[in-house]
Amino acid sequence: MSFKKFASDADVIEFARQHSDLFMADEPLRVEEIGDGNINFVYRVSGAATSLIIKQALPYIRSIGEGWPLSQDRIRIEAEALQLEASHCPDLVPEVYHYDAEQCAIVMEDISAYDNLRNVMVARQKLPLLAEHLGRFLADTLFYTSDLYLDGHAKKALVQRFINPDLCKISEELFFWDPYCDHERNSINEYLRADAEQLWQDEALKLEVAQLKLKFLNQAEALLHGDLHAGSVFANESGTKIIDPEFAFIGPAGFDIGSIIGNYVLNIAGQSNLPGDQAEREDYQQWLLNGINILWNTFAQGVRQHMRDETTDPSLQQAGFADWYLSSLLADSLGYAGTEVIRRTVGLAHVLDIESIEDAQQRAESERLALTLGKLLIKQRASFNTIEALSSNLADQIFCH
Amino acid sequence: MSFKKFASDADVIEFARQHSDLFMADEPLRVEEIGDGNINFVYRVSGAATSLIIKQALPYIRSIGEGWPLSQDRIRIEAEALQLEASHCPDLVPEVYHYDAEQCAIVMEDISAYDNLRNVMVARQKLPLLAEHLGRFLADTLFYTSDLYLDGHAKKALVQRFINPDLCKISEELFFWDPYCDHERNSINEYLRADAEQLWQDEALKLEVAQLKLKFLNQAEALLHGDLHAGSVFANESGTKIIDPEFAFIGPAGFDIGSIIGNYVLNIAGQSNLPGDQAEREDYQQWLLNGINILWNTFAQGVRQHMRDETTDPSLQQAGFADWYLSSLLADSLGYAGTEVIRRTVGLAHVLDIESIEDAQQRAESERLALTLGKLLIKQRASFNTIEALSSNLADQIFCH
Repeated sequence: MSFKKFASDADVIEFARQHSDLFMADEPLRVEEIGDGNINFVYRVSGAATSLIIKQALPYIRSIGEGWPLSQDRIRIEAEALQLEASHCPDLVPEVYHYDAEQCAIVMEDISAYDNLRNVMVARQKLPLLAEHLGRFLADTLFYTSDLYLDGHAKKALVQRFINPDLCKISEELFFWDPYCDHERNSINEYLRADAEQLWQDEALKLEVAQLKLKFLNQAEALLHGDLHAGSVFANESGTKIIDPEFAFIGPAGFDIGSIIGNYVLNIAGQSNLPGDQAEREDYQQWLLNGINILWNTFAQGVRQHMRDETTDPSLQQAGFADWYLSSLLADSLGYAGTEVIRRTVGLAHVLDIESIEDAQQRAESERLALTLGKLLIKQRASFNTIEALSSNLADQIFCH
Repeated sequence: MSFKKFASDADVIEFARQHSDLFMADEPLRVEEIGDGNINFVYRVSGAATSLIIKQALPYIRSIGEGWPLSQDRIRIEAEALQLEASHCPDLVPEVYHYDAEQCAIVMEDISAYDNLRNVMVARQKLPLLAEHLGRFLADTLFYTSDLYLDGHAKKALVQRFINPDLCKISEELFFWDPYCDHERNSINEYLRADAEQLWQDEALKLEVAQLKLKFLNQAEALLHGDLHAGSVFANESGTKIIDPEFAFIGPAGFDIGSIIGNYVLNIAGQSNLPGDQAEREDYQQWLLNGINILWNTFAQGVRQHMRDETTDPSLQQAGFADWYLSSLLADSLGYAGTEVIRRTVGLAHVLDIESIEDAQQRAESERLALTLGKLLIKQRASFNTIEALSSNLADQIFCH
């Protein structure tokens, strides 16, 4: 049976029954198309007591149509990345029940018990385990897919398996080029126009961004999620699920760490002008800054522990190596955090954390703060010895604003 | 016809006739096995007026036998690397007449009009175009296979095509591990033993080497030759041919540049104790130091020119980017030069430039100088703004020794 798009609810239900044992044979099932926004078709199939998700990749972008073709290899990459992540931190990703290469479809765990982190943060909900879970996800997925753990043959096989040029191309342009020039794809608040124009003249900044881009293009360090923004995270009081790794490829570890830190920073910038009590908003900003500390420290401690226990390459066990590695990685991570903050402010895709500020002038205030923080993160990325030094510097910018 | 080792001269001759039009049908041909030393079988097939080379890769290392298996994919990699290099600088590599995937064999140009650079340097022959040719080879092969020139899809396809784990593994161990510990594979002059032991205690050095190793493992920057020592270069008064790229893979550009600079430095260290007139030896050392300058400056000017004319990624055209790129690359190159110098002095494979000093105590003098220069290159690699600053620092070490 060669590939065809699911044409009806009946097709989806049949596929669900065929590839999972969640439902009873005579149980009536219903389907809703929930979408993941842009790229793929996503369906929830529900019975009386249980449900699952089916995600199907078409040879083009869902929201645009056949005019923007996109390799279906992305769904293989997503399935294999989810399975690989699950082998290291099974509690932090949805379980894959079945991957169907022919139909370009994944049958997987429904995570509707969790809320999208974007909404969680806009609603100023404090999830006690979130930052720790994110730090552990990063430590496990990045360490176990790097040369710190794998031998040369295994690592190089992984590089080959996760070559992902179509989706990398999207990031290469949206993160590292569009926001730094007057690109037609950009979306810019009219009250921020002057700031954007200033950004485009900032030659020192653009040189730093070019360096980060080159590293994104050619540092094959670890298997990245590749799209680790708040919308790819679902969480509640007790658990966290990280979804949608279709941008996965072997790249610089700091890109994943920076993407999620950047999303903390974006919400912080939004909170300055979101509706609600000021004290409550500032308290949440403080909570997020502390979350950045917890996230990085959990990551760094996890990697240190793994290196102590599981790095087998004797060269990389050298005294001082872990310190050097983590300090370079902190600099990379902050740089990539800055590129995420900037591209979400003047680039194509914005975030609800700032977009939900209705008044355009007030929104520009938060956007201006985001640009300030983004530039700081990029330009000063190598100057922070600890994450606490960074977060207290950010606090100065935010609360003295 | 499936793979079989050429069993006789007649087999080799038949293969030569079949896959080139160099010879006349009734022309008597003769075969000599010339070997490339270690890994493969290499034959010269000669007629009355002309000759060619056939290189066949067996599934194991020639000099060791079936006990050390090695993937035959290396001959595909060598053929494809030669062809790719030829597309950028055809005058600097032997022409491939035919690559036979089935027989794991390459039929190629005979370069016996050129001398092996190792012997040229031991004999203190000054070839006027050598350094310039090496610099141009590096500029062309490294630029055109990097993200400075290729778009993302083409670059990633190249990464995939040149995954070369077996041969990378050899370098990973021989360059970055063995020489820094009391490894059974090492070969150490008894009069150098104390120096080697001191090297193994040099924690600061070993930390720098670990950083260079990590970069070797995961920086997918450009297609490297991968084994660019003096023995891989053939040259005469008017031309240069670079052979044997079976270690080719997409790695850090500084590794190739550093390998060949390291071989200049090794000869310099040897000249201090090789037989012959002191003034003549010092003059040659000076000539080599100047050659390092010419090599790097030819490379750097070539890359600058290519970037100006042919880099299409607008981010990488940013003002200041070429300066930053070349200055990082100089540091990398010097670091890798240092690892080449050290591994050729206390590691498994030594060089004639030093080995031909017959007296073991005198040889240890040159080896000690090599270790001093190697350590300087690694530890101070980031402190030289120009290649002239480096070579004058080396001169201080050599002539005040």
